[in-house]
Amino acid sequence: MVNETQHTCSASSSSKSDGGSSSGSESSKDSSRCSTPVLDADRHERLREKMRRRQDSGDKWFSLEFFPPRTANAAVNLISRFDRMGAGGPLFIDVTWHPAGDPGSDKETSSMIIANTAVNYCGLETILHMTCCNQTRDDITGHLQKAKRLGLKNIMALRGDPVGEEWEEEVDGFNYAVDLVKHIRNEFDDYFDICVAGYPKGHPEAESYEADLRHLKEKVFAGADFIITQLFFRSETFFKFMKDCQAIGITCPIIPGIFPIQGYHSLRQLVKLSKLEVPQEIKDVIEPIKDNDAAIRNYGVELAVSMCRELLDSGMVHGLHFYTLNREVATTEVLKRLGIWKEDPRRPLPWAVSAHPKRRVEDVRPIFWASRPKSYIYRTQEWDDFPNGRWGNSSSPAFGELKDYYLFYLKSKSPREELLKMWGEELTGEESVFEVFTCYITGEPNKNGHKVTCMPWNDDPLATETNLLKEQLEKVNRRGILTINSQPNINGKPSTDPIVGWGPSGGYVFQKAYLEFFTSSEIVTALLKVLKKYELRVNYHIVNVKGQNITNAPDLQPNAVTWGIFPGREIIQPTVVDPVSFLSWKDEAFALWIEQWAKLYEEESPSRMIIQYIHDNYYLVNLVDNDFPLENCLWQVVDDTFELLN
Amino acid sequence: MVNETQHTCSASSSSKSDGGSSSGSESSKDSSRCSTPVLDADRHERLREKMRRRQDSGDKWFSLEFFPPRTANAAVNLISRFDRMGAGGPLFIDVTWHPAGDPGSDKETSSMIIANTAVNYCGLETILHMTCCNQTRDDITGHLQKAKRLGLKNIMALRGDPVGEEWEEEVDGFNYAVDLVKHIRNEFDDYFDICVAGYPKGHPEAESYEADLRHLKEKVFAGADFIITQLFFRSETFFKFMKDCQAIGITCPIIPGIFPIQGYHSLRQLVKLSKLEVPQEIKDVIEPIKDNDAAIRNYGVELAVSMCRELLDSGMVHGLHFYTLNREVATTEVLKRLGIWKEDPRRPLPWAVSAHPKRRVEDVRPIFWASRPKSYIYRTQEWDDFPNGRWGNSSSPAFGELKDYYLFYLKSKSPREELLKMWGEELTGEESVFEVFTCYITGEPNKNGHKVTCMPWNDDPLATETNLLKEQLEKVNRRGILTINSQPNINGKPSTDPIVGWGPSGGYVFQKAYLEFFTSSEIVTALLKVLKKYELRVNYHIVNVKGQNITNAPDLQPNAVTWGIFPGREIIQPTVVDPVSFLSWKDEAFALWIEQWAKLYEEESPSRMIIQYIHDNYYLVNLVDNDFPLENCLWQVVDDTFELLN
Repeated sequence: MVNETQHTCSASSSSKSDGGSSSGSESSKDSSRCSTPVLDADRHERLREKMRRRQDSGDKWFSLEFFPPRTANAAVNLISRFDRMGAGGPLFIDVTWHPAGDPGSDKETSSMIIANTAVNYCGLETILHMTCCNQTRDDITGHLQKAKRLGLKNIMALRGDPVGEEWEEEVDGFNYAVDLVKHIRNEFDDYFDICVAGYPKGHPEAESYEADLRHLKEKVFAGADFIITQLFFRSETFFKFMKDCQAIGITCPIIPGIFPIQGYHSLRQLVKLSKLEVPQEIKDVIEPIKDNDAAIRNYGVELAVSMCRELLDSGMVHGLHFYTLNREVATTEVLKRLGIWKEDPRRPLPWAVSAHPKRRVEDVRPIFWASRPKSYIYRTQEWDDFPNGRWGNSSSPAFGELKDYYLFYLKSKSPREELLKMWGEELTGEESVFEVFTCYITGEPNKNGHKVTCMPWNDDPLATETNLLKEQLEKVNRRGILTINSQPNINGKPSTDPIVGWGPSGGYVFQKAYLEFFTSSEIVTALLKVLKKYELRVNYHIVNVKGQNITNAPDLQPNAVTWGIFPGREIIQPTVVDPVSFLSWKDEAFALWIEQWAKLYEEESPSRMIIQYIHDNYYLVNLVDNDFPLENCLWQVVDDTFELLN
Repeated sequence: MVNETQHTCSASSSSKSDGGSSSGSESSKDSSRCSTPVLDADRHERLREKMRRRQDSGDKWFSLEFFPPRTANAAVNLISRFDRMGAGGPLFIDVTWHPAGDPGSDKETSSMIIANTAVNYCGLETILHMTCCNQTRDDITGHLQKAKRLGLKNIMALRGDPVGEEWEEEVDGFNYAVDLVKHIRNEFDDYFDICVAGYPKGHPEAESYEADLRHLKEKVFAGADFIITQLFFRSETFFKFMKDCQAIGITCPIIPGIFPIQGYHSLRQLVKLSKLEVPQEIKDVIEPIKDNDAAIRNYGVELAVSMCRELLDSGMVHGLHFYTLNREVATTEVLKRLGIWKEDPRRPLPWAVSAHPKRRVEDVRPIFWASRPKSYIYRTQEWDDFPNGRWGNSSSPAFGELKDYYLFYLKSKSPREELLKMWGEELTGEESVFEVFTCYITGEPNKNGHKVTCMPWNDDPLATETNLLKEQLEKVNRRGILTINSQPNINGKPSTDPIVGWGPSGGYVFQKAYLEFFTSSEIVTALLKVLKKYELRVNYHIVNVKGQNITNAPDLQPNAVTWGIFPGREIIQPTVVDPVSFLSWKDEAFALWIEQWAKLYEEESPSRMIIQYIHDNYYLVNLVDNDFPLENCLWQVVDDTFELLN
């Protein structure tokens, strides 16, 4: 919302005038006794409740605005930015609505899909903008239904900028943001939290500042929950606006929109669009340094920090909204200097949670997708219920097929040339594959001097936890135990442990040692002999691409491999080894050899045939050491196996 | 089934001849993936499956037959006997059907209610006998429906002894056991496991031994799952019978009925009823010692042991069925000498499980009823679902009211005079109550030389586990912290630990320290001040009879206080402190002061007024120390409280 045309409607405020302020209390009933132990209150609150709780506790917050990018590649980069900036703890992000970009479509770059990705795959509380431009009432309803289906819970209701010079009335559409607010409340009751725009200087098209304030009040009384303001250059502008709002009875939260100046041209363009005037004192500084990007950005950061400090120090402001222009550096720096960028290494659960309301109670996942959480979320998006408390309770619903392994958000972010440098331009045998796995584990460059920073089975860089096992992992990968997932055993470390901790403080976390790898049938034959000695201690599942499955797991019961004990709560067991879903994972894990690796090479090329051979002949093995209080025996199992082979 | 008149029907065996042998395979579908981790396979199997599994594993077993007693007091004693003899590990018990005793009624002494108690309260796999005597087809259907509702899963289908000299045809009833078998299969499909009677010597009323065998075959082919035989005196009798059965195509299990001779008169009576002939060599031994009960019983045990050894050694017999005549000593001795009496101190869960099929998945209970499990089962008998995995999932269904605190099976087993001796003929003040609690804990006699072996809040003697806390418990009870429930903290002891272990071997069990007590409002005031220091570590609920409730528990979440980690399974957390059910328990716990203790004394008597005062003014407190790996801090909390009071 860099520019937003005000509504000029003067309809009297509706009789549903209590919509804005009292509707929040209703939903608290839901959270009074939920079936899952509430580990993370945030997961069970709507945005307006989170805002209220932060305000009550005096905990300052920030939010971040992004716009949908134009290309698929830019979208992939923006998603990475969501992950990185999400780490600083924004209360929410919002995604603007671009009528020109087919905003409600399924395109990778649409507003809808970018917002969907933020909420579902990045786990961010997300506001989707929606405007009245070029849309009939039915179009709008359709888009809102789609947003709801995707798990979006918040809408920024705007009229939108005119497509041409002047606003053109839409047949059977809306001409004012207030009508959109009313429509959302009529059609979706209290489902969405609604945000509207406020103009500290009055909207440029408004008859007057006062008339503009009255329109804002109408939007709030029609059911909006809070206000985000247009950008401004002086804190006094905001303070005056806020007092004026309060004076006419607007009591909902008003969040100042902050625009850190990031460059001369972006500032000029913005000023043109928003019809705002840049104060002379700012112009005086900027004009002389207009060709020095770094200098302008430094000044912009300086200016934003000092204005934000004034806002926060006033006691009237609890949160700040940043117009990021999809950029990272300036906003992050402002936030860090304000001390409200809070990288919390503590995790609510061992895996990154999704923000879809359907997944609110989800607290158990199979360990297999630990390094491919987005694939897991994608494949389970059609589930109506998520396992809660016990995996067994879900009766293991079927996993959606990963029909297209090049699926947009799941595919590797590195271009082919990069991957070839990492995984080998030319493979000379299975050993060269062992070498790739080994380099990924050690972080050392390969023969050609390239570091291996990703593998087909890992969305993200190696987990810190894996470092605990680095030495052993290196040793076994070198010999053809190609590890793709592992965790050490943990016998009651504090939940605040920086490496293995998760959940609220005061708890204790536990793990059973886990090791998952591809390996040859020769090694499997020896391994099975060795495993006889460990029959009561180690559970295993060994499967090849054809689905031949060897296991000693009792019945088809899942094995909990991560759990936590917290004060005043039931046990949480967020990760399990589930025999049934292992077979879905097996399909995915084997397919990745071909789809991500083999296909880098020409058909019939020796390199491709090597990967194809591994795909056709290797086994996928997982091992759990059930005796978590003792020293992890899985390395001994592997050592014994190699010894038997020699 | 000491005597059972054979059927003389010669109807051809029905076309549903596969009912007996193949129906077992159907139910295995249910158990292939159940929502609860299978800790105890027995809980999920039907009787015929248990029998088959024991046979496959070569694990010899025994079962016990009882008849319904005549008086309520005798019923209470019989139930205690079920508990004691249940400890030896019978595969099942069976309860005979006495047409004269209103067998299907709700009387405490009816066959139906005794069997109900065995299955639900004592957790024993139970067969209810049913005969055709004096019952119409509809009566029988009604009784079977009731049995099913009560959780009974096995029926012994008999014609029954004639009420008079000769069998009289029942109008609209059945005259032959085979018709009853068919009726059960027609009306209840495969729900019940059905047992029928076999006569190793042929039934006395049968035309011939061969004709009797044919009738048995008809019963089996009509749908019976196994056969229990009438008693016999020589193992050859059984071997011949078994071979003859096999020769005509009877393949289901045939279980020999064993009658240890326990006295001269009971043997004579039995012989008369069953029309069996006692072999001369037995008569020769018995007649000279007929007035020496001990000698006869010793001989009977000797004889039974030697015959049972022959049966078991033959390899044809996998289980032995004992006609106990409701007596304990002789049968127990035979079983112990045979080495098949197996007291297994290991518990499948920390609390005694019920054998009702509805409760098959139950694996979480509030800790409050730990010492009153029968009350818990009674109060939750109307629940359709039982908490499984998490208490939270059950949304804490309402507990049935305990309307009558003298409820038959829940009331104290000691007569009033006994209780007065233990709990004081005359109380002189609150301190005399403290003294009673202290004596119960220490096991020392009270001032008048009587040991306090039970309390209103405890069905059973003090748990072995409580001994771990004995010294501290004694100290605090002496000072007016009147403890009714407690457990020590446990940080990962083996599941085979003889005192705190439960569940299958190879696991680890954990506990948070728990302490529950009544205490005065003065102590509560000090305690609350002390608890501030322990805010993050100790969760508490403090409530008085009026329901004033003080707690620091987050929301209304349950706190898991017992859990276990087992190889290849999800976490089991069988005991929780649940804030909602605590209020139901509170009503029960306070009422017990009045119903069980105060009412021992005359109205208006000082003793009664003391108990009434405690009931009206004391608080019920529970404390959980969440830091299970550290030393239990609850004693320090209590010490600090007393220090503050001084």
